[in-house]
Amino acid sequence: MPRYEEQRNFLKSDFKTFSAIETDKQKGIPQPPNVKAYDADAEIVDLPAVDGGVVKKENIYEIIKERRSVRHYAKDALTLDELSYLLWSTQAITGTNRSGITFRTVPCSGGTHSFETYLFILNVDGLKKGVYRYLADCHKLLYLSEVNDIDEQVDKMTLDQPFVPNFAKRASVIFSWSCIPYRSEWKYDITAHKKILIDIGAVMENLYLTSESIDAGTCALGIYDQDMVDELLHLDGEDEFTIFLAAVGKKVEKKERR
Amino acid sequence: MPRYEEQRNFLKSDFKTFSAIETDKQKGIPQPPNVKAYDADAEIVDLPAVDGGVVKKENIYEIIKERRSVRHYAKDALTLDELSYLLWSTQAITGTNRSGITFRTVPCSGGTHSFETYLFILNVDGLKKGVYRYLADCHKLLYLSEVNDIDEQVDKMTLDQPFVPNFAKRASVIFSWSCIPYRSEWKYDITAHKKILIDIGAVMENLYLTSESIDAGTCALGIYDQDMVDELLHLDGEDEFTIFLAAVGKKVEKKERR
Repeated sequence: MPRYEEQRNFLKSDFKTFSAIETDKQKGIPQPPNVKAYDADAEIVDLPAVDGGVVKKENIYEIIKERRSVRHYAKDALTLDELSYLLWSTQAITGTNRSGITFRTVPCSGGTHSFETYLFILNVDGLKKGVYRYLADCHKLLYLSEVNDIDEQVDKMTLDQPFVPNFAKRASVIFSWSCIPYRSEWKYDITAHKKILIDIGAVMENLYLTSESIDAGTCALGIYDQDMVDELLHLDGEDEFTIFLAAVGKKVEKKERR
Repeated sequence: MPRYEEQRNFLKSDFKTFSAIETDKQKGIPQPPNVKAYDADAEIVDLPAVDGGVVKKENIYEIIKERRSVRHYAKDALTLDELSYLLWSTQAITGTNRSGITFRTVPCSGGTHSFETYLFILNVDGLKKGVYRYLADCHKLLYLSEVNDIDEQVDKMTLDQPFVPNFAKRASVIFSWSCIPYRSEWKYDITAHKKILIDIGAVMENLYLTSESIDAGTCALGIYDQDMVDELLHLDGEDEFTIFLAAVGKKVEKKERR
């Protein structure tokens, strides 16, 4: 087998195999929910409504032209309005069709929305440090838990990237998306997984662009300790596991590029 | 093995395996070029310079709020200025660092930029129908070939999606990105392929947002006939192959959502 053949095949369209499969959807198995359940008695934080008022640089052309990966962050906290806008732009529900499929601020194959958004909050006005989950169905935050030495932990879990040591701990927030793959497997079976990665790329890009629009910056973190992040977020690592991370903070003068 | 285990593992961070591998980069093998070579005598079309002048809806918040997948297109042609802007926003080179790594209008893991952009031109002012490739290093188009019955072919290669029959042929242009995986494998070896899919997701999202900004619309086409598209583009299917497609056209009143 040529080197990387298996991995390269994963990048291709496998429509022929897919056509021969009876999916769980086709079997009449009910669609799984695309927002994870939570206890209404839990500690829930309201997020400010999003109307674009926090945007400082609004022009899409300027934003795309100037966007770079940012790994040096100012000491300034992110405001709750800003965080609310970033969460909105990456996962908010913006409508529902007649079949009950939700539309979000990001495109998604078949409206399956296989992600949950977790946050490691380090420096956001009005929020105590710790781990939270975004509730897309009501645009609120669910407080999950404290993390001992959270600044050290986020650097450790992102493997303390050598080109900018300790940069993660200087961020205001680490977005950590989990994947619940069955949401997409239900509809797309073995072809789900290519789609899931493309979809998280769209989430990443909205975070890049909206961060740039509020004078903040982000850096995607594709290298991370899978087991460590899953454990910190209490994910089982099979039916739900971490798929991608990104650090966000306010910009300083010097910026690095990605 | 639990169902889908292999596919799910592909979505995870495989840093431990990666750390044990000596990559081609680490072996001192030279980095492959990240723009495909072309014959300077070929038929090359100049593209208008991009300054954002074609943008009708510029506000990022409004764009994200209103973006939907669009599968019904007006008969109006896309202008060359508009196409130039869409190509710029999805792959243009915007800078180069001291190591020679190019920055583009989209983020990309390690600046490896594993994509080439091919276009099936159906209805663009000033361009004859046929297949073209975008030349990111000089922001021009390379005319590749005519395609007999191109409208029929694009519907066939995108498997004539049942929810909107023949929609692809009514588009102005089909973006068809290929992947040259070695550009990323050189640096990331077996962990390249997850990154490549995330990166093409960012390309897709920029196309969604910039289309929305010019009163056009797009619909990503994750389902396609791999062999057919590769053949139409004269790709070998191993070292370069089609990874994703999207249809673009001007909007009509009715729009469908993705």
